[in-house]
Formats: sequence, C-alpha cells, structure tokens
Amino acid sequence: MEIGKYLGYQRQVVVTCGPDESVDAAVLRLTRHNIGAMPVCDARGAVVGVFSERDLIRAYASEGANVSSRFVSDLMTRAVVTCTPDTTMSEAEKKMHEKRIRHLPVIEEGRVVGMLSIRDVVAWRLSLQRDEILVLRDAVIAARHS
Amino acid sequence: MEIGKYLGYQRQVVVTCGPDESVDAAVLRLTRHNIGAMPVCDARGAVVGVFSERDLIRAYASEGANVSSRFVSDLMTRAVVTCTPDTTMSEAEKKMHEKRIRHLPVIEEGRVVGMLSIRDVVAWRLSLQRDEILVLRDAVIAARHS
Repeated sequence: MEIGKYLGYQRQVVVTCGPDESVDAAVLRLTRHNIGAMPVCDARGAVVGVFSERDLIRAYASEGANVSSRFVSDLMTRAVVTCTPDTTMSEAEKKMHEKRIRHLPVIEEGRVVGMLSIRDVVAWRLSLQRDEILVLRDAVIAARHS
Repeated sequence: MEIGKYLGYQRQVVVTCGPDESVDAAVLRLTRHNIGAMPVCDARGAVVGVFSERDLIRAYASEGANVSSRFVSDLMTRAVVTCTPDTTMSEAEKKMHEKRIRHLPVIEEGRVVGMLSIRDVVAWRLSLQRDEILVLRDAVIAARHS
C-alpha cells in the first residue's frame, strides 16, 4: 500500500512549525496535538528539518533550563529523510529501520502533505500479518477438506 | 510467553530513580541509557511511580524552564500499572492498550526486576505472527502435495 492511500484513510492534519519559532512554543504545539514530532518548514513551505520530543529531551539533558532561550532551528534534526505519497508502506518501514528514525515527512511537489510515524508503520504491518494469517488458516482448512 | 522469560532473553538492566531526585538528574539518566521511562523507587526499593520523557515534555510545555527546579515526585505518574515475571506478554499487551501506557514495571516480591516497554511487546507480537505465517505456509504447501 502507498503512504498517500494510508494517510488518506487517517484524514491526517499536518502540524508544522518554523525554524525561527521558540522551543517553548514548539513544545507546546507538540503536546497540544499529542504528537511526537513535526516537520519544520521555511517561509516557502519547504521542509528544512524535523523537531521532535526527542530533540527537546536531548537538549534539556545537556543544557537544562537554558533550552528555553533556544529556537527550533538550534535543536531540530536537519538531515531529514523524507518520502512521497507514492512510497509504499513497506519501503517506508525499511527506511525507518535503516536510518533508525521514527518519523518521515511526506513530500509532494516540494510541500509537506503528511507525517508518517513508526506507530503508523507498525499498525499497518501488524494488520497486514493478521490478514495473511486469516487467509492462510482458511487455505489450510480448505485444503484439508478437499 | 511469560515476561520473565522474555526479559531474560534481553538480559535487561533496570535503571531506576528516586522520588527526591532532581528532574534534571533524572532526564540525564534517561538519555544516557537511551530509555523513555524508568520506575521510581523509594528507599526500600518499592515502586512509587514511573518517570518518563512524556512527563518531562508535558511539564515543560506547561511551565517551561521552571521545570528545572522540580523533583521527580512532582512530575512522575503515580498510578502505576505493574506486572510480574509470570504475566504473559499477551496479557501485558492487553493491559498497555487498555490503559494507554507504554511502560510496565515488572515486580517480584515487592521489588522491581524489569521494565517492559511497548517496543518489546510490539517486537514480540510481530515475531509471533511471522512464525505463525511460516508454519501456516508450510501447512498449505504440505496439504497441496498430500
């Protein structure tokens, strides 16, 4: 299945932030939307990074309360791995495991149209396996009765 | 499979903290051990809460840099859901979904002996399903040739 199709089912709203926003404002947005990460977009809508809970935790661990005077661009992950709506869930799963990342911004014509999380990928894989088990169980029963 | 058996395979070291530790020290420990949560134990080793990255994020979102003057007991989750080494992975999975929690301290004779994460449970379930698919595929092939 393609990511575009999967995210379409989920009717996802993409929450983003800007590189010049304060860390405090960005963290508040993450918690309000109950998400672990969001794409960082410049004024033209291009993705320039990803800002995650994990980025805050790491920065807080190393500099404590000083993190409050920082901006998203100071903490965000710049080496962004992305995908497109045509990328398959299976390819996205492989990418996330290889790069050890939990979020993939979905890009279409230079703009971010979604955010795929490792949660989505795991839920998709579990459901795919469950379906295969049901089909195979039926095939075994059918074969025994033929 | 029982949790005790599963965690035995992983040779897990349990990282804990105390309720009177500073939030800054606890966060540093989480990042150093690359974990998302740890049990909070009192002086006698009894679990009195769980302190997680999520607790820090929530507190930081609501009070910003002031969080640095707080202690673990101020931020930790007190309503701790636990399990024992005899709890099955399947029961633990159900508990985590029902209570919407990502970590289960494993308790034996009043002391914490492990920490089960949703990651563990998902990895176990994926592997269990993969095994069942292989067995079923063999059964289908065998049935066709018999």
